[in-house]
Amino acid sequence: MPSLLLFSLDDKTSESKRERSFELERIVFFSDAVFAIAITLLALELRVPDLPIETSDALLRAIVSEWPKFLAFTLSFWIIAQYWVAHHRYFRHIFHYDVGLIWLNLLLLFWIVLIPFTTSVLGEYGNFTSAIWLYALNLIALGLSNALLWRHATQKHRLGASDLDELTIRQMQLRALSVSVAAVIVILLTFVVDGFATFGFLLIFVFQRLITKRYPSHAK
Amino acid sequence: MPSLLLFSLDDKTSESKRERSFELERIVFFSDAVFAIAITLLALELRVPDLPIETSDALLRAIVSEWPKFLAFTLSFWIIAQYWVAHHRYFRHIFHYDVGLIWLNLLLLFWIVLIPFTTSVLGEYGNFTSAIWLYALNLIALGLSNALLWRHATQKHRLGASDLDELTIRQMQLRALSVSVAAVIVILLTFVVDGFATFGFLLIFVFQRLITKRYPSHAK
Amino acid sequence: MPSLLLFSLDDKTSESKRERSFELERIVFFSDAVFAIAITLLALELRVPDLPIETSDALLRAIVSEWPKFLAFTLSFWIIAQYWVAHHRYFRHIFHYDVGLIWLNLLLLFWIVLIPFTTSVLGEYGNFTSAIWLYALNLIALGLSNALLWRHATQKHRLGASDLDELTIRQMQLRALSVSVAAVIVILLTFVVDGFATFGFLLIFVFQRLITKRYPSHAK
Amino acid sequence: MPSLLLFSLDDKTSESKRERSFELERIVFFSDAVFAIAITLLALELRVPDLPIETSDALLRAIVSEWPKFLAFTLSFWIIAQYWVAHHRYFRHIFHYDVGLIWLNLLLLFWIVLIPFTTSVLGEYGNFTSAIWLYALNLIALGLSNALLWRHATQKHRLGASDLDELTIRQMQLRALSVSVAAVIVILLTFVVDGFATFGFLLIFVFQRLITKRYPSHAK
Repeated sequence: MPSLLLFSLDDKTSESKRERSFELERIVFFSDAVFAIAITLLALELRVPDLPIETSDALLRAIVSEWPKFLAFTLSFWIIAQYWVAHHRYFRHIFHYDVGLIWLNLLLLFWIVLIPFTTSVLGEYGNFTSAIWLYALNLIALGLSNALLWRHATQKHRLGASDLDELTIRQMQLRALSVSVAAVIVILLTFVVDGFATFGFLLIFVFQRLITKRYPSHAK
Repeated sequence: MPSLLLFSLDDKTSESKRERSFELERIVFFSDAVFAIAITLLALELRVPDLPIETSDALLRAIVSEWPKFLAFTLSFWIIAQYWVAHHRYFRHIFHYDVGLIWLNLLLLFWIVLIPFTTSVLGEYGNFTSAIWLYALNLIALGLSNALLWRHATQKHRLGASDLDELTIRQMQLRALSVSVAAVIVILLTFVVDGFATFGFLLIFVFQRLITKRYPSHAK
Repeated sequence: MPSLLLFSLDDKTSESKRERSFELERIVFFSDAVFAIAITLLALELRVPDLPIETSDALLRAIVSEWPKFLAFTLSFWIIAQYWVAHHRYFRHIFHYDVGLIWLNLLLLFWIVLIPFTTSVLGEYGNFTSAIWLYALNLIALGLSNALLWRHATQKHRLGASDLDELTIRQMQLRALSVSVAAVIVILLTFVVDGFATFGFLLIFVFQRLITKRYPSHAK
Repeated sequence: MPSLLLFSLDDKTSESKRERSFELERIVFFSDAVFAIAITLLALELRVPDLPIETSDALLRAIVSEWPKFLAFTLSFWIIAQYWVAHHRYFRHIFHYDVGLIWLNLLLLFWIVLIPFTTSVLGEYGNFTSAIWLYALNLIALGLSNALLWRHATQKHRLGASDLDELTIRQMQLRALSVSVAAVIVILLTFVVDGFATFGFLLIFVFQRLITKRYPSHAK
């Protein structure tokens, strides 16, 4: 019996099941709720079109002609999803919290909450440079906040993450910044290809995939 | 006393109470939040009608004349509820997670998030074939994502579910696909009965009920 | 030491800390999210007024003239709050779940999700009998679903609640039904006092207060 | 082994990990969800502008001209964030609940839910005294509810908080009231500087920072 007991206690303190405090769980929980609401509100921009003549074909054409909105919606859904997965990845290694973490996390959420707005501008006026810039600036701020959060948590192994080596920490940092880099590239692209620069945002997923391929160890 | 202790520890590791990792709980939690928001946003499509003449009777008539919107709302509420219950049923048997599960789950949520939009199109233009098709395509994608998620989780008992036999796993698979089948039937129906094909969506509930009746073992 | 251990284990299995399964927690969690979203969406009906002439006084007058909307908002906020507290009270005694509980709980949420819509109709056309009826019907359905849920959970102590005596169970039942009774009274009032019947909804809070006063034992 | 066991049990009952009841967790959870929804809905007020002439420059100018809305959004985001952090701070010391806590918490949420509305009025008509007053009144009510909640929880160490000395409790009380004080100052300012009084709301953050500097012990 004693060995069984030891095992059970041991199991509890192992990395994967180490208990987070109720307060840290609340921070994570609140963030999850904000991510979930922002990702669902994206679809509110997809509106039932008004039809000049009410026929089934007119409806079909009206919906198809809204493709830039669907593209913007899809893009933002997967970008927010990407950030949620990153948040998930970070907090798997964070076991403590301090005032800094709370406010940096709120700063990250501030930029997440703005995504539905910048997405709707992109969906409506995606052929305009200013709409692309607005969206790109949102992503740059998001990427920087994410990198700040991760640096704050891992510096001197402040908030846990003692199981991670310096190299992995830096690689996860690069990953966060890659979104900002992609957005900067898109801004530069607007000087060359104008309205089509929107497609440059797909670089985000290319970058993520490349990093995942390159460092499969921390892919999850 | 030792026996009491053993019992207590034993109880903890039993199937129903086996602890999921904090990370898996976050995935489930995030999904629940998205399901909850999508199901509540459905009602946003029900709007206060503008009245040509402001009388109590005019209000009553205006609300009654919105019955297709109420029908679409009710249909989608119970379809999302159905998917939430299915998600609930799946994760009762899932005890681990991997990158695949995270992204397949996000894919499922992508189609859930679109439901309020396709519902509002159906509520407004339910008599048009194109509105029915749009809604049916959303359900087909939803059913397929659901089936993919379940296959990924159960293949080679990858993510838990060691307590399920092959037959039960396959029956739950069929159940997920039955929604897609119902949606395909509705699409075929539009060639025959046109606008009335909407009522074909009720097949979803008939199918679910039949499967529950047929295999009561995993009814919950 | 053994006694300490015993105490600790004992403590865990005591009523108040008895562990619910992950699945039951998900049901409660999902419900909480729906309650929270519905209660927050209520405020979406409060809109920034358009001003004929743009002055500070005109704004003040415009906001004051929207008092029926504020009244409807306040009424619905506290009614949903009341139902959330009731849900909280019920699940304090529910420790298991079955298919019936899942679907009856979803039925309850169906009526909760409709509240923002019926509230906005009441806020806009509160002087019309049909608006009052619509709102009252929503509350009647809500009260009945609540009573059904509680009956299902407590019948033959099906889903826990073994700590409650028959009398307390029946009193909590009456409490759920009191909302429906208040709504029925309001419907009857519309035949007598017409538009002013809205104020009859305040009976809900009077009833709850009376019941709490009468049976302080299960006040929480 | 016994010492290990003792340690483990001891650890569990330590302040930071002391288990809250499932019911208290639900209250906190529900509050978190309402905070998260209210903070995300703020951004719904930022709308895609209609353009008189459709050019990239016109879009840029239209967005820039909406700066009062962005200011109001940013202000309210950080005020709600501030309240969420305060809520977080309070419940770190609350380990029990009673009817009073439930209803005072709901009262706090009532004022939180109203913030998106008063924010949108401020964003649209921030140069009008009546808009500033409306927003200020909302904050005053919020600050008072917060102070009431904290007083109820800590009076005679009613709901836990036995680890806090009288002085710290009173300092946290002052902190809650400082928001109301800032709002009162803004109202007084409207008599002097009129429309510019909005900037007075920044006092909230100055006050919070001063208090944090002054009493770093309970900064988190």
